[in-house]
This record gives sequence, structure tokens and C-alpha cells, in this order.
Amino acid sequence: MITDALQYAEDHHDQFLAGLKELLAIPSISTLPEHKADIQQAAQWVADHLRALGMDKAQVNQTTGHPIVTAEWLKAGPAQPTVLIYGHYDVQPVDPINLWTSDPFQAEVRDDYLYGRGTSDDKGQLFIHFKVIESYLKSTGWLPVNVKVLVEGEEEMGGPSLDRFIQQHAEELKADVAAISDSHMLRPDLPTITYSLRGMTYLQIEVDGPSRDLHSGQFGGAVYNPIQALVEMLASLKNKHGHITVPGFYDKVRRLTAKERRSLAEAPFDEEEFKRDAGVAELWGEKGYTALEQTSARPTLEIKGIWGGFTGEGSKTVLPAKAYAKISCRLVADQDYHEITDLVEAHLKKIAPSQVSVSVKRLHGGQGARIDLNSPYMKAAAKVLEQVFGRPPIYVREGGSIPVVASFQQILGIDSILLGYGLPDDNLHSPNERFYLPNFYKGIEATIRFLSELAV
Amino acid sequence: MITDALQYAEDHHDQFLAGLKELLAIPSISTLPEHKADIQQAAQWVADHLRALGMDKAQVNQTTGHPIVTAEWLKAGPAQPTVLIYGHYDVQPVDPINLWTSDPFQAEVRDDYLYGRGTSDDKGQLFIHFKVIESYLKSTGWLPVNVKVLVEGEEEMGGPSLDRFIQQHAEELKADVAAISDSHMLRPDLPTITYSLRGMTYLQIEVDGPSRDLHSGQFGGAVYNPIQALVEMLASLKNKHGHITVPGFYDKVRRLTAKERRSLAEAPFDEEEFKRDAGVAELWGEKGYTALEQTSARPTLEIKGIWGGFTGEGSKTVLPAKAYAKISCRLVADQDYHEITDLVEAHLKKIAPSQVSVSVKRLHGGQGARIDLNSPYMKAAAKVLEQVFGRPPIYVREGGSIPVVASFQQILGIDSILLGYGLPDDNLHSPNERFYLPNFYKGIEATIRFLSELAV
Repeated sequence: MITDALQYAEDHHDQFLAGLKELLAIPSISTLPEHKADIQQAAQWVADHLRALGMDKAQVNQTTGHPIVTAEWLKAGPAQPTVLIYGHYDVQPVDPINLWTSDPFQAEVRDDYLYGRGTSDDKGQLFIHFKVIESYLKSTGWLPVNVKVLVEGEEEMGGPSLDRFIQQHAEELKADVAAISDSHMLRPDLPTITYSLRGMTYLQIEVDGPSRDLHSGQFGGAVYNPIQALVEMLASLKNKHGHITVPGFYDKVRRLTAKERRSLAEAPFDEEEFKRDAGVAELWGEKGYTALEQTSARPTLEIKGIWGGFTGEGSKTVLPAKAYAKISCRLVADQDYHEITDLVEAHLKKIAPSQVSVSVKRLHGGQGARIDLNSPYMKAAAKVLEQVFGRPPIYVREGGSIPVVASFQQILGIDSILLGYGLPDDNLHSPNERFYLPNFYKGIEATIRFLSELAV
Repeated sequence: MITDALQYAEDHHDQFLAGLKELLAIPSISTLPEHKADIQQAAQWVADHLRALGMDKAQVNQTTGHPIVTAEWLKAGPAQPTVLIYGHYDVQPVDPINLWTSDPFQAEVRDDYLYGRGTSDDKGQLFIHFKVIESYLKSTGWLPVNVKVLVEGEEEMGGPSLDRFIQQHAEELKADVAAISDSHMLRPDLPTITYSLRGMTYLQIEVDGPSRDLHSGQFGGAVYNPIQALVEMLASLKNKHGHITVPGFYDKVRRLTAKERRSLAEAPFDEEEFKRDAGVAELWGEKGYTALEQTSARPTLEIKGIWGGFTGEGSKTVLPAKAYAKISCRLVADQDYHEITDLVEAHLKKIAPSQVSVSVKRLHGGQGARIDLNSPYMKAAAKVLEQVFGRPPIYVREGGSIPVVASFQQILGIDSILLGYGLPDDNLHSPNERFYLPNFYKGIEATIRFLSELAV
């Protein structure tokens, strides 16, 4: 049975790529209201595709936000485990569009890469699972385990619909383990399993000063400029060692054990390559931690956006009424994002100069997670990755957030196996996002083997 | 002769107001390229108007920027002094347009105020001088002194054309004293002569970090965020006492004498009213100085605008490549703006973290000025203001900049008499700019008397 599926996959590379390009052509940008119709279209495309592959009950579930697609195939019988496949069909915006070499929604192969928005995050990686299902069902009419599929459209906007949906449909979504491909390998030849994810809280700060924009010649010097207050507040959130100064921020952070630090130090992390990827000559971060620790095992606080006053061409002598910033914190496991959000908000209000007022809007949040390294599912993943890539996988902490991992743990009580096939230089959320095609096909092979390995 | 002019002015209030409304209806916003045709139209209107009043050689002089209007009437003869009248026909932008009660370019009288963009800054105040010329020439065919008129269109954008024009036409512009109405009285009943103006330098800062926007989950924590660098740098430019920390910034600042401080303390400055005008509950400024000193006699450094990263709706987890700010310094007499600009730029580059690069663009600058309080022109101004307002004028330092005053001193070697008829709550550069009409008419009367007083 597995041989048939592997052969089918081997024989259909071109068709798989053509199918993926169709999905990539739908500009399903979740954060921009003008793409609402595209979001609906992408959801419908995914449901139709799953039905065509032979999945049962493939359907688009409307929510108060963007729709969620579900499907299932439960004919393997109660003796076999059930795998819940998760992915997202929404993508990031594409600005600045002029920096793209090819149209972000007309995916194009150059060298070994497929370029386009969503190729790696996450349509391309999600498609690996679709092609695994296809390879089994089209060649043998059967899957070695029961499979449920859950595909959402609010991942890139941190929308609330998914958690609500999981809560409301916990029974239908019941499974033994989840499989997610939305992370990356450290190198093209180095299979990588992510076992820890950072959580996140994302806030918008508004500083209100004078009731209207003032003439700076008349009032400048005697009125607290809200931009001044904002930059002072933001600058004070870190000390010169890069430590975050919000009281209580680190209280729940699990200390890195010596063993974990050794394991991270042994990861094939190339600082020079990391710098090249980032486009910086020199790194900077919290003192006492390596770059890999800083980006995966330590919490951060970053300014994501700032604006206020006159930002047009030329000069205008205005003393502005308001100033704004967006900040987010990446959190590690055991830091509760609600609690951290409360701490940050309270601290901002405490340090605000008395001449201005500060309000905080909570834009979104998600919990971090840690996954059991010793479960049979994890062992199965390790085994198949070694078979396909020729060496055992490395276990890493991921700096980014996949909030659904925490939701699956908390609501469904299951771990997720993160089989990531992206690469660190895939330009996620940036122009020229790409996906390394050899690993698209290797990912399909590994996941075909993974399902087989899970069967009892 | 003065009696005829005063009577003419008295009899023509309505016509004067109607004429002013015509000029105000031209949206001559100098900083917005889409108003280029309006700028030309306003210049032409002013030249035509001056010709119609009886001025000689009224003409629009094209420059590489916005045109400059000149006119003269030199028939008073060589024994009489020559007064150079200066004003500007350009205005500030009108955003946010939704906060205007009436159309900014359809001036409207409500209570004793004329509302509209340019009513106080500076079309309305400039028009006082036009109506003085009209009152003399239309009633008597004569002016008591020789008059030259110079009206520019780049005041609100700090354009370079005027200084170049004054240099190239120094001979034609030769005069004994300049008269400028582009400042304000402290109270409607309190005639005010400004004898000191702050200079200015206006800079744009660009902080460059990574070569492209990065995914904050992947790189956040190990890469210096350029917004972070920018807020740290900006926050460090003032210490907790509000003193500017740029080395050398205060070196040339003339200390306030005890006499000046006493005189400023005696000025009828109402802090509660100032706070109400500013729309703030609490003032803030450099320690050790009163609000009036802070806004007129001390240099400042203000953030005028800031932007970088994601500023749209919702949340985007980007670690941006660049961040920007606009800052300006108000300077006091003896601080050379070129020198201060050099100091600020050098300091910014010095304090920039090594992980980012900082570049500075010089957007505009102007020198501060001090005017001799004991000249016969100043004494004449004081006398006529007392005649019209019933009390002697108060002498103040102005926080804003009128760079032409320094240019007249440096290029033409003459002082300017600043007969300001605006009020502190005229909403300059803000929505609902207005001009207190009783002082429009009193200004005309005072200036009719001023020209007569200057005649020998």
C-alpha cells in the first residue's frame, strides 16, 4: 500500500506543482478587507479539492470572521489512530510590491525554488498533506490511518475564529495527534522537528497630548509632545543589556537547562548565514544568550510600527496631538499571554508622563507551547525523516508562533507533530517568498511514510 | 493727509473685508505640489491688486520655486525714509479637513472673527498694509514715506527663493526699515511688539537596519530593530530636566538677563489660558524656566513626525528595515542654524548603535534675530500703538520663526518692525484658523499712523 502511494507521488510531481499554483493564484490576504472575496474563494477551492481527492464531508464552515474548511476520512476503523491535519489558506500582504521579482500571485519556478506569496507560508506546506492523501486514495483507495483536516483563514491576522471553532467542534475534531507543516528546517538537508513555539501578544499604544495639533513655535518647549513621551516610554522598555524592564515579565520564564543550551549550541546554526539572511552586518540581542537562544528560547519585546505627527514630504512645524506605536512580545512556554499583556499595559500606564494619557488596544495574542519529545508520534516522525533525508532530525525551538498548537493541547488535549519543510531564507512575510521544491517532494514522501508508521 | 486716509479706512471696512475674502479664496498651499497653479494665481492676484491700489512696478517675479511679488511707490522723495513691507501669500495645508467648521477657503465671519486658512497667517495681516496704501493713495494720491513691497510664497515651506531674491535684488530692495505683520498680540487689547525671533533647523532622520523587512518570529531578539534604535536615540536627546543633550547645543545661547526675566515675568501671560489654548491639563518644559521663557527665550528640540514598520489596521509581525523621524530645533539669537544642524547631525551619528546606520537630511533652516529696541522706528511704532489701543505696547520675544527678519538684517542691513495683529488662539497651522476683525481695522489705523510718524 505504501509502495503504491510512494510510486503515485513519484509519478505526479508536475501535476502536484500545477495544482499548488492554482491555489497560490488566489490572493487570500486575510488582513486586508478588500480581499474578502478571495478569502471565500480560497476556502471554497480547498474544500472542493479535498472532496475531489476523496475526502468525506469536505465543507466550508462560515464563521464571524473568515471561513474554516473541514473534511474527514475515517474508514481506517476504530483500531487505527486519527491524525488531525492543520494548515492555513490565508497569506500575508505583499507590500512593498515593487520589490517582488515576479508576480506574488503567479507562482514561478526559478532554479529549485517556487516563488510566490504563500509558497512556504503556508499553502505550499499544507499542500504536502493534500498530496499525501491523494497519493494514498488515488492509488489504493485507502489511508493507513483515520484523517481529519482543519484549514483556517485567519492565521496571519491572529483572528479569534479558529479557537472558537475548535471549542464548539471539539467532538468532531477529536484525534490522537495533529500534524502541521508550517515551520522550517535549519538547512535543506537537515530534517528538523520543532518542539517548542513562542507565544505572542500584540498591542497598540496611543499617546494623547494636546487636544489638537499645535503650532510648535507658539507652544513648543512648554507642552509635552506625545511623540516625545512615546519614544521615552518605548526606549525605557529595555535596558542596555537588552533585558525587558516590565516588572514581572520574566517571572514565569522557564530557565534554559544546561542540557538544552548544549543541544541548542550543537544545532548547525551558522551565525554568518543568519546575518546574511537578515541583511545585517552585526547582530544585537539580550546579553548572555546566543542568537539562536534569543530567537527561540527567550521572550522578546519588539516595536512593530510607530507613527505620529507630520510624515509627508518636506517640513511642517506641528506639535502633534497624538502618537501611536504597535508592539509585540514573543513569549516562551509558561508565560501566559493574558498575564503578560496585563503587565505590559499596567507598566506603560505607570511610566506615562502625567502630561499625556496612554491607552492600550489589545490586537491579538496566542499561547506558546512545548511538545513531548518522547511520544510515539514524535518517534515515528523522527524515523521517517531519517529514512527520507538520510540523517536523524534535529529538535529545535521555533521563534515564531503557531498558536493552534497551544489550542490543540488545551482544548483537544493532543500534541502536534511539526513537520516543517520550509527554509530560513524563504522570505516569509517579505517580498519574493519562496519554497524549496526538492523538499516539497521529500515532504510528501516523508508524510506518506509517517501515516503508514502511525498505523497499528 | 493722515485725516483723509483714516477717514477713508473708516468708510471702507466692508470693502476691505470683501477684498480680503477674495485673496483668501485662493488655496495657495505652498507645500503641496497640486496647488502650484493656485500659488501662481495668488501671486498674480497680489500684483494686480497692488497695481490697482496705485503702486508702481507691481510685478510677479518667477523664481526656481514659487514667485515673489514686488511693487514700489517712491514719490515721497529722497528726503523721506523708505519702508519695505514684507508678507507672504502662501498658507499651510488644511488637514484634517473634517475638523473645520466652515470651508477653509470660503472665509466666514462668526462673532468678531473671520475664519479661514490664511486669515491670520498671513494674508489677513499682509492685507492691513495693502489697505493702508489704499487709504492714502485713494484719498490723497500720496504716501507720507516711500514704500516698497515684497510678498513671497514659500514662507510656510521654508523655501530658498526669498533669500536668493533678496541677495540678487539688494539694490532695488534698499530701504531704511522693514514693516512686517506676521506675529501676534498677547491679548486683544494689548499692543505687542516682537523684538526677538527664534531661528530654526528642521531635519529628517533615517535609521537603516536589516536590508529588508524581516519576520519577527524568525529574527526578532537577535537583530537591532531600527525603530528601537530610533526611539532610543530620540529619547536620549533630552535629559529628565528637559535639557537638550547635544554637546555644544547651548554654547552660544545668550543667557537671559535678570532684567529680561523680570520683563517677561511682567508680561500678562496667563498660564491657565495658555493651557486651555493648548488643550493640555499640565505644562511641561525645560526645568528652571517659565512657560513664556521656554516658548520664546530658550531653544527647543521637538519631534515633528515619526514613522516606521507596520502602521495599518490590525497586526503584522514585521521587523522593519527602516525607521524615520522629523525633528526641528527652535533656536535663539546667536545660535547659528548651520552650526546647530552640524552639531545635531554629528551627535545623532555618534549615538547611533553600531548595528544600524543613520542618515540625516536637512529640510530647512532659518536664523533667529533680535531687533534694536531703541531705534526711531521702534519708538514710532510704540507711539502709534498707544494712540490706537490706549496703552503702551509690551515687548516680547516670539517663539516662532520669521527667517526674513534675519535675512533683512544680514543682507540689507535693516531692522524689521514687527507689528503683529494676530492673537495666540488664532489656530495657526490648525483647523479653524481665524483673525480677530476689530484688530484688523485697528491694525490699519495704527499702520496709517505709523507711516505718517516715520515722515520727516
